[in-house]
Amino acid sequence: MSAVQPGAFAGQVVLITGAAGGLGSELAKQAASAGATVVLAGKRVRALEKVYDAIVAAGGPEPAIYPINLEGATPAEFATMAETIAQQCGRLDVLIHAAASFSGLTPLESLPAEDWLRSLQVNLNAPFVLTQQCLPLLRASRGACMFVLDDEARVGNAFWSAYGVAKFALRGLVSQWSQELEYAGVRVLSFTPPPMRTTLRSRAYFAENPELIDTAEVPAAQCLNLLVRTGAKVH
Amino acid sequence: MSAVQPGAFAGQVVLITGAAGGLGSELAKQAASAGATVVLAGKRVRALEKVYDAIVAAGGPEPAIYPINLEGATPAEFATMAETIAQQCGRLDVLIHAAASFSGLTPLESLPAEDWLRSLQVNLNAPFVLTQQCLPLLRASRGACMFVLDDEARVGNAFWSAYGVAKFALRGLVSQWSQELEYAGVRVLSFTPPPMRTTLRSRAYFAENPELIDTAEVPAAQCLNLLVRTGAKVH
Repeated sequence: MSAVQPGAFAGQVVLITGAAGGLGSELAKQAASAGATVVLAGKRVRALEKVYDAIVAAGGPEPAIYPINLEGATPAEFATMAETIAQQCGRLDVLIHAAASFSGLTPLESLPAEDWLRSLQVNLNAPFVLTQQCLPLLRASRGACMFVLDDEARVGNAFWSAYGVAKFALRGLVSQWSQELEYAGVRVLSFTPPPMRTTLRSRAYFAENPELIDTAEVPAAQCLNLLVRTGAKVH
Repeated sequence: MSAVQPGAFAGQVVLITGAAGGLGSELAKQAASAGATVVLAGKRVRALEKVYDAIVAAGGPEPAIYPINLEGATPAEFATMAETIAQQCGRLDVLIHAAASFSGLTPLESLPAEDWLRSLQVNLNAPFVLTQQCLPLLRASRGACMFVLDDEARVGNAFWSAYGVAKFALRGLVSQWSQELEYAGVRVLSFTPPPMRTTLRSRAYFAENPELIDTAEVPAAQCLNLLVRTGAKVH
């Protein structure tokens, strides 16, 4: 049983980066169907509009689309994003970092330095700065911030490149930040999904039949339920 | 027993970043006393000269000083560094990343984005790019690259900031790279030193009496012996 309880996110505003992606879009749809007003952040507006349409068609609260390219976004742009959410939604309860950049298995030796920096920008620096900018809102709501990690036993293997390195780094970030914010009542959580039928996975396992891999539906529900369960605890 | 066997590094060229630091200077002196020609890299030339003088006074092979500021160094500068070593030393057997940047315990929430990036530059990006540039030399010598990590049970705690995050990231880097280079005969190793009486430590434990903490002497020998032992193995 992994469906999200109806109404579990009623009245809550949930910001999801990478909301057009395999996991991000499932998170968005299921959060909305559990009552959340979802802010769909991402760079592919057309794909975000599809998620938007699916949410509206399913009768969920009207979501918002926030176009942003994490690769080039500056701290000031993340600050503007947080301000805009405060003004237009009035609050922020949950921030989910579902965006990821992975361009395929590559030897570190031949990875151009610019590609290394670009990957760390999307996978590590952007989530750090966006979280910083959203913290005043999350403090006010005693909300939560969720980082999507990846299995270190896999991404610590050869050729997972800067994506894998960033996932190791994020685990250190979550470890520190969850301690630092414990007494503020802000939960900093991580979720490591199982193998999922996503574009990211197909870039590593291109010879695999995707039909044999489960979709992101169940992992998305597990991730949201982790938010629900931890939120129910008294801090 | 942790002294390095005399002659263990005879005929070898060993490049050490942060060679004026607490651990780096010990590594340099002990490697030289075991026969290595050491390239002392760092930004504080006066402090590097002291290490140089100590090595010469002890009768070790004449070292070289390579002034470099990891915070601002570009990939082209690291390429020049590797070329210079190839030209002037003829080879490179060991690269030890002993440089670290840690400016003190800080909440992530109030860490300026520029400080975050600066720390990741020194602690993560620079070692990555320098290793890339040195790999042709290390392949030719079937040499080794050593990353100095830190105890994740400590630096995963609150306030270890970007320094701690970078150390998590480096563990992922070492894990991947050691696999990728296994068949090239290049060893990619990591060493996690115990608490040491260093400037870095004093920035976190400023109320501690440093006299109660062991110096870097024994850890440096352990680190070098790890290089010796793994190099003795047949690949």
